[in-house]
Amino acid sequence: MAVMPEPVIERLLQLTRILEKHPKELLSSAEIEARTGWSSHTIRKDISYLKEELASGAGYRVKDLNAAIHKALGLETERRFCVVGLGRLGSAYLNFPSFGEAGFTLSAGFDASVNRIEILSSPVPLYPSFKMAEVISRFAIELALLCVPAEAAQSTAEKLVAAGIRGIVNFAPVALDVPASIYVRNVHAVDELRAIAARLNATNEDAITADID
Amino acid sequence: MAVMPEPVIERLLQLTRILEKHPKELLSSAEIEARTGWSSHTIRKDISYLKEELASGAGYRVKDLNAAIHKALGLETERRFCVVGLGRLGSAYLNFPSFGEAGFTLSAGFDASVNRIEILSSPVPLYPSFKMAEVISRFAIELALLCVPAEAAQSTAEKLVAAGIRGIVNFAPVALDVPASIYVRNVHAVDELRAIAARLNATNEDAITADID
Repeated sequence: MAVMPEPVIERLLQLTRILEKHPKELLSSAEIEARTGWSSHTIRKDISYLKEELASGAGYRVKDLNAAIHKALGLETERRFCVVGLGRLGSAYLNFPSFGEAGFTLSAGFDASVNRIEILSSPVPLYPSFKMAEVISRFAIELALLCVPAEAAQSTAEKLVAAGIRGIVNFAPVALDVPASIYVRNVHAVDELRAIAARLNATNEDAITADID
Repeated sequence: MAVMPEPVIERLLQLTRILEKHPKELLSSAEIEARTGWSSHTIRKDISYLKEELASGAGYRVKDLNAAIHKALGLETERRFCVVGLGRLGSAYLNFPSFGEAGFTLSAGFDASVNRIEILSSPVPLYPSFKMAEVISRFAIELALLCVPAEAAQSTAEKLVAAGIRGIVNFAPVALDVPASIYVRNVHAVDELRAIAARLNATNEDAITADID
């Protein structure tokens, strides 16, 4: 497979989300452009990475295109993850239904407080934080949802990296300093509010263009 | 100000996050490129939208560049937001410290359950959902964190739109169907896990390029 640049991966991920809720059998390039702002050139180029014939005259075959993206991005591979930090946010994710459907298996939860672990009800085993290295290695856990308080995020991330984790979804409102080989996705409600505020501002001042190409 | 394309807004937002935690007075174009993968051409082009002289010989002046981005994106404007759905996630956001520092004022919380509203401790007033239109209009609330369960997300979003909300950060794992004038940012832990999984897959198969330009 040809080398896939980061922005292509990002757009194909977004495209699967569109395809997964598209109610019809076909999706045209014009519909994708209307939804995303991507030029038809970009759409064709991205889909050409999939190396399959996915277009009919009236558009892309939704089911086949989605399957091809899943295959190309390795989304069929089952991957194990853990939740670290079992406060309100973390404990909510212990009981979140949609991970399994997407191929992610919750394998463990961790918290610094032994008390909290004993009280929480959970479909998977919960462990005190000092067992992180042992449990992550034993269950071959690759991914972590990091839900600890801001002040504990960096030190916990370092422990996760030392334990062999490969990717972290960071919900703590701080930037993590980890080796470049570890994939980090930051989820910050403040950043999301800012992203909307910047667009409200642009709309007020002037038209903004939707050129994402 | 020149029309600012969406990807420029997105990159400038990311750049403020880098600037806000940069410990030195100057940040060079090469350092930005190393952190983001953006070409120096892209960086120069983005910063040229700010219409200020921000570079010294050894790099950009961190404080000035950050202030210029805040000004250009309207991030100094104080904006009010509400939290809708006060389960584990929503109620965690009621007591989140970092909103105020970023210029966002939490003005109200809403939940369908009157019981829950009476039990929760909160720094801002909480209301039953049927009061949403009245309260949002009275306090001129512009933004909402949507933390309701998936099955209630679409109908609640419609009520928020009818109440005059302008932007929604959607934590429910469903796509919202709202008018194009409403800004929606979707936060899905599953999507974040997928984004990491796709990169792990690409790394295993082949090198991926970091060309974001």
